[in-house]
Amino acid sequence: MAHGYETGRLNLPFVGIPTFGKNRDVEDWDAIDADVAILGAPFEFGTQWRPEAMLGPQAIREASTLFSFGHGGAYDHEGDATYLGPEVRIVDLGDADIIHTDTAGSRANIAYGVRKILAAGALPVELGGDHSINIPCIAAFADNGPIQLVQIDAHLDFVDERHGVRFGHDNPMRRAAEQAHVTGLPQFRIRVVSSTAKEGYEAARSMGSDILSARQFRTLGVEAALSRGPRGSTIT
Amino acid sequence: MAHGYETGRLNLPFVGIPTFGKNRDVEDWDAIDADVAILGAPFEFGTQWRPEAMLGPQAIREASTLFSFGHGGAYDHEGDATYLGPEVRIVDLGDADIIHTDTAGSRANIAYGVRKILAAGALPVELGGDHSINIPCIAAFADNGPIQLVQIDAHLDFVDERHGVRFGHDNPMRRAAEQAHVTGLPQFRIRVVSSTAKEGYEAARSMGSDILSARQFRTLGVEAALSRGPRGSTIT
Amino acid sequence: MAHGYETGRLNLPFVGIPTFGKNRDVEDWDAIDADVAILGAPFEFGTQWRPEAMLGPQAIREASTLFSFGHGGAYDHEGDATYLGPEVRIVDLGDADIIHTDTAGSRANIAYGVRKILAAGALPVELGGDHSINIPCIAAFADNGPIQLVQIDAHLDFVDERHGVRFGHDNPMRRAAEQAHVTGLPQFRIRVVSSTAKEGYEAARSMGSDILSARQFRTLGVEAALSRGPRGSTIT
Amino acid sequence: MAHGYETGRLNLPFVGIPTFGKNRDVEDWDAIDADVAILGAPFEFGTQWRPEAMLGPQAIREASTLFSFGHGGAYDHEGDATYLGPEVRIVDLGDADIIHTDTAGSRANIAYGVRKILAAGALPVELGGDHSINIPCIAAFADNGPIQLVQIDAHLDFVDERHGVRFGHDNPMRRAAEQAHVTGLPQFRIRVVSSTAKEGYEAARSMGSDILSARQFRTLGVEAALSRGPRGSTIT
Amino acid sequence: MAHGYETGRLNLPFVGIPTFGKNRDVEDWDAIDADVAILGAPFEFGTQWRPEAMLGPQAIREASTLFSFGHGGAYDHEGDATYLGPEVRIVDLGDADIIHTDTAGSRANIAYGVRKILAAGALPVELGGDHSINIPCIAAFADNGPIQLVQIDAHLDFVDERHGVRFGHDNPMRRAAEQAHVTGLPQFRIRVVSSTAKEGYEAARSMGSDILSARQFRTLGVEAALSRGPRGSTIT
Amino acid sequence: MAHGYETGRLNLPFVGIPTFGKNRDVEDWDAIDADVAILGAPFEFGTQWRPEAMLGPQAIREASTLFSFGHGGAYDHEGDATYLGPEVRIVDLGDADIIHTDTAGSRANIAYGVRKILAAGALPVELGGDHSINIPCIAAFADNGPIQLVQIDAHLDFVDERHGVRFGHDNPMRRAAEQAHVTGLPQFRIRVVSSTAKEGYEAARSMGSDILSARQFRTLGVEAALSRGPRGSTIT
Repeated sequence: MAHGYETGRLNLPFVGIPTFGKNRDVEDWDAIDADVAILGAPFEFGTQWRPEAMLGPQAIREASTLFSFGHGGAYDHEGDATYLGPEVRIVDLGDADIIHTDTAGSRANIAYGVRKILAAGALPVELGGDHSINIPCIAAFADNGPIQLVQIDAHLDFVDERHGVRFGHDNPMRRAAEQAHVTGLPQFRIRVVSSTAKEGYEAARSMGSDILSARQFRTLGVEAALSRGPRGSTIT
Repeated sequence: MAHGYETGRLNLPFVGIPTFGKNRDVEDWDAIDADVAILGAPFEFGTQWRPEAMLGPQAIREASTLFSFGHGGAYDHEGDATYLGPEVRIVDLGDADIIHTDTAGSRANIAYGVRKILAAGALPVELGGDHSINIPCIAAFADNGPIQLVQIDAHLDFVDERHGVRFGHDNPMRRAAEQAHVTGLPQFRIRVVSSTAKEGYEAARSMGSDILSARQFRTLGVEAALSRGPRGSTIT
Repeated sequence: MAHGYETGRLNLPFVGIPTFGKNRDVEDWDAIDADVAILGAPFEFGTQWRPEAMLGPQAIREASTLFSFGHGGAYDHEGDATYLGPEVRIVDLGDADIIHTDTAGSRANIAYGVRKILAAGALPVELGGDHSINIPCIAAFADNGPIQLVQIDAHLDFVDERHGVRFGHDNPMRRAAEQAHVTGLPQFRIRVVSSTAKEGYEAARSMGSDILSARQFRTLGVEAALSRGPRGSTIT
Repeated sequence: MAHGYETGRLNLPFVGIPTFGKNRDVEDWDAIDADVAILGAPFEFGTQWRPEAMLGPQAIREASTLFSFGHGGAYDHEGDATYLGPEVRIVDLGDADIIHTDTAGSRANIAYGVRKILAAGALPVELGGDHSINIPCIAAFADNGPIQLVQIDAHLDFVDERHGVRFGHDNPMRRAAEQAHVTGLPQFRIRVVSSTAKEGYEAARSMGSDILSARQFRTLGVEAALSRGPRGSTIT
Repeated sequence: MAHGYETGRLNLPFVGIPTFGKNRDVEDWDAIDADVAILGAPFEFGTQWRPEAMLGPQAIREASTLFSFGHGGAYDHEGDATYLGPEVRIVDLGDADIIHTDTAGSRANIAYGVRKILAAGALPVELGGDHSINIPCIAAFADNGPIQLVQIDAHLDFVDERHGVRFGHDNPMRRAAEQAHVTGLPQFRIRVVSSTAKEGYEAARSMGSDILSARQFRTLGVEAALSRGPRGSTIT
Repeated sequence: MAHGYETGRLNLPFVGIPTFGKNRDVEDWDAIDADVAILGAPFEFGTQWRPEAMLGPQAIREASTLFSFGHGGAYDHEGDATYLGPEVRIVDLGDADIIHTDTAGSRANIAYGVRKILAAGALPVELGGDHSINIPCIAAFADNGPIQLVQIDAHLDFVDERHGVRFGHDNPMRRAAEQAHVTGLPQFRIRVVSSTAKEGYEAARSMGSDILSARQFRTLGVEAALSRGPRGSTIT
């Protein structure tokens, strides 16, 4: 429901049903008419560590209502610019259908939603969920490529397989690097000491990954670092 | 969205946008077509004590999704009966429009929503909010009376005025008793020692209230107690 | 480490490493020498609702240390009896190995641990985990049957299959009823209105389940109810 | 500050400085003029288990402000009686002075406060703190005895000494039984299976304790149970 | 109660009744004899967003006791200076009287307390409460002006009126700019993108506000920025 | 239990019994064979402020399991180095035996554990507990000195005695400075304004302490600051 400074309702953020940013929800995924489409992926079967990532989409939606005061976008008084103004049409598709005990089926449902958004010509924004939801999300671009990925992350996420696990939260960048439609993968990394062993870095570099620590990124400068990166990329 | 054991979606409770019981939301309050209509009242200006009642409607909606597994109602295996089956059409209107600093305007908005539900011939169910939301809710029945109220509560809520406060959470039953369309007010009370002084009980009885403690209620028995009460009543 | 009123250490409950009841942990599952063996199953892929059940085994272990004051069992001053005295040898095996994204593999690991306990002649006590961990636990008794199950629960858990899900937290009693070594299944049920539809109760009764509500159980009395039940049963 | 329905201030419970029930605080313990005096004992060195009991007095004070609506006592509409009306003068002394690392000194400070209250002819009410604060509290009655104690508790608290500990939360009833001014000690007990071994019950009975479980208490009835008990007793 | 290294009491921070910094409380607001007077304003009717600001004064008082160790002020070992030493007399007035449902009356009570502090020649320090408590606080200076305000904040708070709301948490700086005794209003702002639309900035500048982002403030330097600001100002 | 990429178990961090980093626990303190030995000190009798420090060792152990993924140490991809690789043998001794009400006995038990670790030639790492656990820890080095201490802290902790308290969380550096085997005590301090009065700084300097604020440390540079410090020191 539109905020109405000029209409009969104040419609404050904490009031009513929390769609993302209190934008319109779309139940029929064959009728997406928007610039940006939000899709939740309340999936956490891919994590090796603490639970609760599946509560992420709902929590993000609730917090997002803070930004529904109806100001017609976010104004930057320093740069005199307005971001995400009313000309950007955002809709909320709800969540992909997660099926307990069925990890492959749940991943397929996530990919299905992303493909529907791409088919409608909208920008998909996914609310996780654990980090493994990148896998179906990136796979869904197969018919919309080639794409390049820019990863800004503390971890490398480049494990091939351990104990038969190939689609957990350690594997998404490796799965991405294997796909034909992913043609570049710069990894701008924050943390110097992380959970990846030396072999992991060597494997990533051998498959074309460009890894920079935060210190190396600062030394290069934003311009030089970006000149190593892609255009038209997806930030994971 | 309907649960779909037979359709393409599992649509588990924790998935998607939390309307009440994951029932259909209705944005146009002039087009309510339902048996039961849910209306949130995230209002807490009426409380003398701790905050957070305004978060009630959202919290109740989230919890209510537990009951959206799509079983077609709640089956009682002892009595062999199904409650709230698919023949009962429930919709969620969202919340009344609460205006900060404007307590009278907020109460008017709550009453406005209840009148819209009554005009559509549906049963209003209000999600609070502090106890003072009863005041606009009961007032909204003025053209749909006479009604009788059954109060099952720990407190009497029968204060007339203190420090100019007449519409706080201590006043709702007194405000109700003053209205012409309220023709009966039995008060089945749980707590023997509460926050009302002796004068409050005397005033309530003098205005026709029938007050029973939990012990007195048990001694009478359900049948006898109810025979003192009204029919067609609203439980607050 | 044994509590030492008579030795050099007080070894209070909050001190040290929280095995179950501060009993001895056993890392080599081929060398279990005990009357009771504790096995954690930090598994929650089977739930359709909130997460965090995987944190159960650790939380239970921490809470259990309250009962490690070294009194040599729990004394009942009314009945003049001591329960779980020092003659009962309890050990803690740690947890079954849960593999993220691999629900079948995780269930197999739970069953593996229970079989090791049974092979050592000890009583298995499993710490969950969501309700679906009953499935591998009961299956592990295949070579140790026949057994009868007594279910004391709010829910029936008798769903056969929905959306391809056969091993979630709705399915354990159905999976149990299908197994040859399970020869009886009385279901003493607490909640009259629950999440099972009418068809579920009919299916359960047709497969031999004996369902009693809490009210029916009280009317029958403990003696009569138990006379309908099995001997040598496992309480789930 | 007195609540003022008739004066210029509403002085709601959540407003202002949280003394106990928003009663007058008394800083000079040689000038206590009251019927009841509250003394906090934020002491927890005596517990073998979880911390945080030292936060008890402050938490109780905050919660107690709920009962400061200025109704002139608590009215019982069933029995037509008012309890703790304005004729009962209650004051708040603040807390006894707890000295970190000095358990004996802290106990002495608790006893000092209780003796000041008794010297003023007021009823002491102590806010703990762990259960061992009973020890200085009961000891402070030495010149005001003889007294009898009625214990209503889940535990027996009758340990003499373990590892040199004689003043922890297991010891208070044993310490009480040893004192000349304590002439009776009925123990109305709730929990049948607790943390005391058989020897503990035998020792308590041999020193004159009268132990009743909750079931035994109900079988006897309140009248008969109380006829076994004392008059003029202190409930711990 | 004074901390007593040299006296008989240790009086640790967590002990006793939590006035602000455990300073003396003053109940008679016509007898304030101090350099600084603390006044709580547990008011939150002015917020459009989450509740709980009314719990602020009590929470601040509790936290403030950490600074009551009795060291006679806070010593800066680098600059060799002691701040807020014993020569600064601080008192705690408790809270302004908030009346539920009566927002205008509550604001009047806040202003009343501030005027009492100013009449006593003390510096008022207000503990909120939502941001709208600035409105009565600044208004109370009407007879003590002219004053200049320095705002250091993420938001502009310069809304004139929306839906009839003129005294909510969006309005305080606009209400201030309208008052004759406020002669300057520099706004040193932290956040570049915030909840104010472009029109808001233009309106503020047209009424004489001097708005600096954090980056602009750093570029100017502290000296140059302050030379644009006032002397004798109140920081909100 | 060793992580087993190559063996039959995945042994994820959240699984099983939480020793420190899931390293081997050692119950017999006369048989410590390791490079590093972890010892918990769940002691908080020394604090003047909030409780819960005694829960520290258990909480640290739980959190530490995050670092038990079995990568054979932590790899630094920027410096191409691996820290704490498999050549460093770490064991967990559990906790020192804390005796309620007996602060001196508890300190003695902490010192006993540290001496056992030193006797085995391992590096002791202590998990607190409040800051006063430094006192027995440093004292335990008496036969292994001389040592120098480097303190990196917000507070000075150099109080001699107040109200008879000499072993609380304010006293550890003073107690250290008094001991013959402590031959140097540089104090690299972070906070300029803290809880120590001016006299405290003068006393510390007169006993040889070298105090630097964070700003002074940065101005000097790491090299120059360290050249003022010791070698072979213990960081508290």
